[in-house]
Amino acid sequence: MPIDTVIAIIEILGGVAFSLSGAAVAIEHRLDIFGVLVLGLTTAAGGGIIRDMMLGITPPAVFANPLYLVCAFIAALLLLLLTLLSKGRLFLNYKTSMQAFINVVDAVGLGIFAVLGTKTALAMYDNYLLAIFIGAITAVGGGILRDISVAVPPKVFRKHIYAVAAIGGCVAYCVLSCFCAQWLSMLISMALVITVRILSAAFKWNLPIITPIDRAEH
Amino acid sequence: MPIDTVIAIIEILGGVAFSLSGAAVAIEHRLDIFGVLVLGLTTAAGGGIIRDMMLGITPPAVFANPLYLVCAFIAALLLLLLTLLSKGRLFLNYKTSMQAFINVVDAVGLGIFAVLGTKTALAMYDNYLLAIFIGAITAVGGGILRDISVAVPPKVFRKHIYAVAAIGGCVAYCVLSCFCAQWLSMLISMALVITVRILSAAFKWNLPIITPIDRAEH
Amino acid sequence: MPIDTVIAIIEILGGVAFSLSGAAVAIEHRLDIFGVLVLGLTTAAGGGIIRDMMLGITPPAVFANPLYLVCAFIAALLLLLLTLLSKGRLFLNYKTSMQAFINVVDAVGLGIFAVLGTKTALAMYDNYLLAIFIGAITAVGGGILRDISVAVPPKVFRKHIYAVAAIGGCVAYCVLSCFCAQWLSMLISMALVITVRILSAAFKWNLPIITPIDRAEH
Repeated sequence: MPIDTVIAIIEILGGVAFSLSGAAVAIEHRLDIFGVLVLGLTTAAGGGIIRDMMLGITPPAVFANPLYLVCAFIAALLLLLLTLLSKGRLFLNYKTSMQAFINVVDAVGLGIFAVLGTKTALAMYDNYLLAIFIGAITAVGGGILRDISVAVPPKVFRKHIYAVAAIGGCVAYCVLSCFCAQWLSMLISMALVITVRILSAAFKWNLPIITPIDRAEH
Repeated sequence: MPIDTVIAIIEILGGVAFSLSGAAVAIEHRLDIFGVLVLGLTTAAGGGIIRDMMLGITPPAVFANPLYLVCAFIAALLLLLLTLLSKGRLFLNYKTSMQAFINVVDAVGLGIFAVLGTKTALAMYDNYLLAIFIGAITAVGGGILRDISVAVPPKVFRKHIYAVAAIGGCVAYCVLSCFCAQWLSMLISMALVITVRILSAAFKWNLPIITPIDRAEH
Repeated sequence: MPIDTVIAIIEILGGVAFSLSGAAVAIEHRLDIFGVLVLGLTTAAGGGIIRDMMLGITPPAVFANPLYLVCAFIAALLLLLLTLLSKGRLFLNYKTSMQAFINVVDAVGLGIFAVLGTKTALAMYDNYLLAIFIGAITAVGGGILRDISVAVPPKVFRKHIYAVAAIGGCVAYCVLSCFCAQWLSMLISMALVITVRILSAAFKWNLPIITPIDRAEH
C-alpha cells in the first residue's frame, strides 16, 4: 500500500477518534442530538482548519476530501444511536466509563494530529520551530474548540500531561525523521503521544505546580 | 436596482442587526459605554472576518467598505443613546423585552449571514460542502465571539434550534440556487432561517436531548 | 542604531512583557510548570499570529525570528524559577503585588503591540480603519487567549480603560505619523497607551456603565 494511502487512512482514524470525543462530550453535557453531531464534526475538523489558516492553505484542506468528514460524521452518529438505543446504558457506571472512553479516543486523536500536523508544516517550510508549533496546534485545536463550546475550561493546560505529550510527539517526529524512514518516525511518535497520554490519565500523573507561600490569603 | 446593490444593502442590514444584538448583550452584561460600541462592532464584523480568513480573502473584506462598519457603529450608538436617554426604560419589563429584542435581531443577522456566506463561498469554489460550512460559520461566528466576550456559554449549541436553522438556510440556498433566480433563492432561504429561529425561540422548540439512564449520579 | 533594529528590540520587549503577564496569570491560576511556560509563549505570540492570519502573512512572522520566542521563553522561565526559588515569597502580599505586576507588564505589552500592529498594517495597506483594527487586535489578542485559557472572562471589555487605551494608541499613531518622524510617533503613542492603562488600573478609572432602571429584577 503506498504511503500516501496509509497516511490518509491514519488521518481518517484521527478524525473518527476526535469526532467520538466531541460527540461523547456533547452527550455528557446534554446537548441536543444535532449539537452532538456538530460538536463531533467541530472537534474532528477544528485543529486542521486552524492549521490551514496559519499555513495559508485556503480553503481548508478538509473540504477537499469529503471522505474524512463523512467518516467523522458516521462515527458521531453511531455513538449517538448506540447511546439512544441502549437508553444510556452504553456507558455503564456512566460517569467513570464515559470519562475513560473520552480519554482514550482523545489520546488517539492527539497523537495522530500532532504528528500529521508536524509533517504537513515540515513539507511546506523548512522550519522546525514552526513545525512543532503547528503540530501542537493541530493536535490541541479541536479539543480547545470542543471544550469552549460546552463552556468547560480548556483542559489543555490542566489535564495530566496533555499539551506536553503532544509537543513531545512533535519533537520526536522532527528528530526521528532525520534518521528513520518516514513511516517508522510517524509510528513511533504517535505511539509515544498515545501511550504517555493514556498512562498519565489512568494513573493521574501530573507535572509539579508551584504553590505560592501565602495561598491561604486567596 | 442592480442585484449587487440589493445584496450590499441586505449585508448592511445584517450587520446592523448583529450590531444591535451585540450592543444589547453588552448593556445586559453591564459593559461600559465603550464596551457596548466595541461589542456591537465585533458581533457585526466577526463572522465575516472568520469567513475571509478561511477563504484566504486578506485583508478581510469588511474593511474595504467603511459604510458597513459605519452603519453597524451608528446602530450600536443609537441603542446606547436611547437606553441612556430613557434611563433604561427603553426595555420595559427589562429582562423579558431585552431577551425578545436580542432574539429577533440575532435571528435576522443569522439568516442574512448564513445565506450571504454560502453565496460568497460558492462564488469562489465549486464545493457545496465547503459553502454550507462557510455559510454556517459566517452566521454563527459573530454570535460566538459576542458570547465568549461576556463569558456566557456560546448559545449556538444550546438554544432552541439555532445552528440547525442556520445550516438549514445554507442547504436551502444551495438547492434553490440550482432552480430559481438568485434573488428568489436568497429571499426564501433567509426567510426560512429567520422564521424558524424566531418561532423556535418564541415557542421554546427544542431538539431532543439524550438523557443517560443514571444521570442522577452526576 | 538603524530604526529597524530599534523596532525589533521594542517588539522583543513587548513579547517579554506579555510572556511575563501570561506566566504570572498561569502561576496565579495554579497551572503546572509546563503550563506556565506555554501560557507565557501563547500570550507573547498570540496577538501577532492573529494579526498575520488576518493580513495573509503565512506562516506567521513570529517563527521567522527565533530570537523573539527565545526571549519570551526565557522571561517566563526566569519568573517561574524566581517564584520556585523564593518559595512563592517573590510576591510578598501575594494577591496585591501579583496583580500589580500583571497590570504593569500587560500595559507595556499592550502599548507596544497596539503601535507595532498599526504600523505593520499601514505598511501593507493604505487603510486607516484596517490599521487601527489590526493594531487593536494585535494588542488585545494575546491577552484574550491568555484569559480564555485559564477560563476567566476576557478582561478586555471589563477592566478599567483597557481596549480604549489600545485603540487610542492606534489612532494616535495614525495621526502622529502624518506629521512626525516615525520613531517619535511610535514613542508618543506607546507612552500614551502605557500611561493611560497603568494610571487607570492604579486609580480604578472606569468608563460609565448604563444601569437599567429595573436592574433589581435580575
